[in-house]
Amino acid sequence: MKILEERILRDGKVRPGNILKVGGFLNHLIDHQLLDEIGKEISALFCGQNITKILTIEASGIAIACAAAHYVNAPVLFAKKSKTINISNDCYHAEVYSYTHQVSKTIMVEKDFISKDDRVLIVDDFLANGAAIAGLMSIVEQAGATLVGCAVAIEKGFQGGGDELREKGVIVKSLAIIDSMEDGKIVFREQ
Amino acid sequence: MKILEERILRDGKVRPGNILKVGGFLNHLIDHQLLDEIGKEISALFCGQNITKILTIEASGIAIACAAAHYVNAPVLFAKKSKTINISNDCYHAEVYSYTHQVSKTIMVEKDFISKDDRVLIVDDFLANGAAIAGLMSIVEQAGATLVGCAVAIEKGFQGGGDELREKGVIVKSLAIIDSMEDGKIVFREQ
Repeated sequence: MKILEERILRDGKVRPGNILKVGGFLNHLIDHQLLDEIGKEISALFCGQNITKILTIEASGIAIACAAAHYVNAPVLFAKKSKTINISNDCYHAEVYSYTHQVSKTIMVEKDFISKDDRVLIVDDFLANGAAIAGLMSIVEQAGATLVGCAVAIEKGFQGGGDELREKGVIVKSLAIIDSMEDGKIVFREQ
Repeated sequence: MKILEERILRDGKVRPGNILKVGGFLNHLIDHQLLDEIGKEISALFCGQNITKILTIEASGIAIACAAAHYVNAPVLFAKKSKTINISNDCYHAEVYSYTHQVSKTIMVEKDFISKDDRVLIVDDFLANGAAIAGLMSIVEQAGATLVGCAVAIEKGFQGGGDELREKGVIVKSLAIIDSMEDGKIVFREQ
């Protein structure tokens, strides 16, 4: 997605430890016009797939999932990273290691909100080693639902998670794939 | 907002401890059509206010803020509840007690993303005792920005936070105000 790649080049910041900061437009301050275009593009990529639910993980996945939901015309379900007093005890759980928080967390989704009749599109802002998506895929599987595919805004291709999923037959569409950030120079994969 | 009140009556669940569960349509599973209507209504309530930024707090505020952003035509900035490796050290901070998590947390916003030139609308899903909004107002104040007002989906009027803010002169608009949930019966305030 050209406008996303251009924005990453213009406003993204490469930091030590393979960190790409996109907080200025995607996951802290969110450019609502770019977000809308991302939602539209995700919808176009999965057109005709009869998606009944968009599954994401709090927090920064929520914005992209909601933008996609607007065009896909399906509700958003977001996995929670901590137990609150207003969540039921009857949940599906999965373990996810967060690269940005550098801790492992149990994510949860109430069983009432996903079923075997659902056709699920997983959406997130980033895909690096694929830990978050693996956790969300586990929840889809536990629910007996059908996984339509995964859509992410930015894939760090050099961390391998996306290609591992593709090798397993999972449909993974990333709007921008970064194949290298060596010496702070961002190189995108041709798509 | 009639359709929100009707939805709360239909699908909301009152639980002990003044808990209102709306996870089936607002803050776990999100009805994208209702979300869109909420965004539209918030925009209408603050029409002509030249809002430059919508400020919210992760996680469930993000969906509503993004829906409002679409119609208000302003970017979303969300306060983070934990430090990640991709956030700068140069942040505004505030302490917020979370009613649903039952812990106090330090929220943070990067200083680069809010300035004295901003006209800020604070948006959240719930307003009960007002702790989250007070934290967000503190960040607006630290940045020297102008607070236009606060918009929330559901105010628990009987917990007093909204009326305290109004008494201080803050413009607070809630799409549904619940004045009582005694014996599980939800009573809305006439607006």
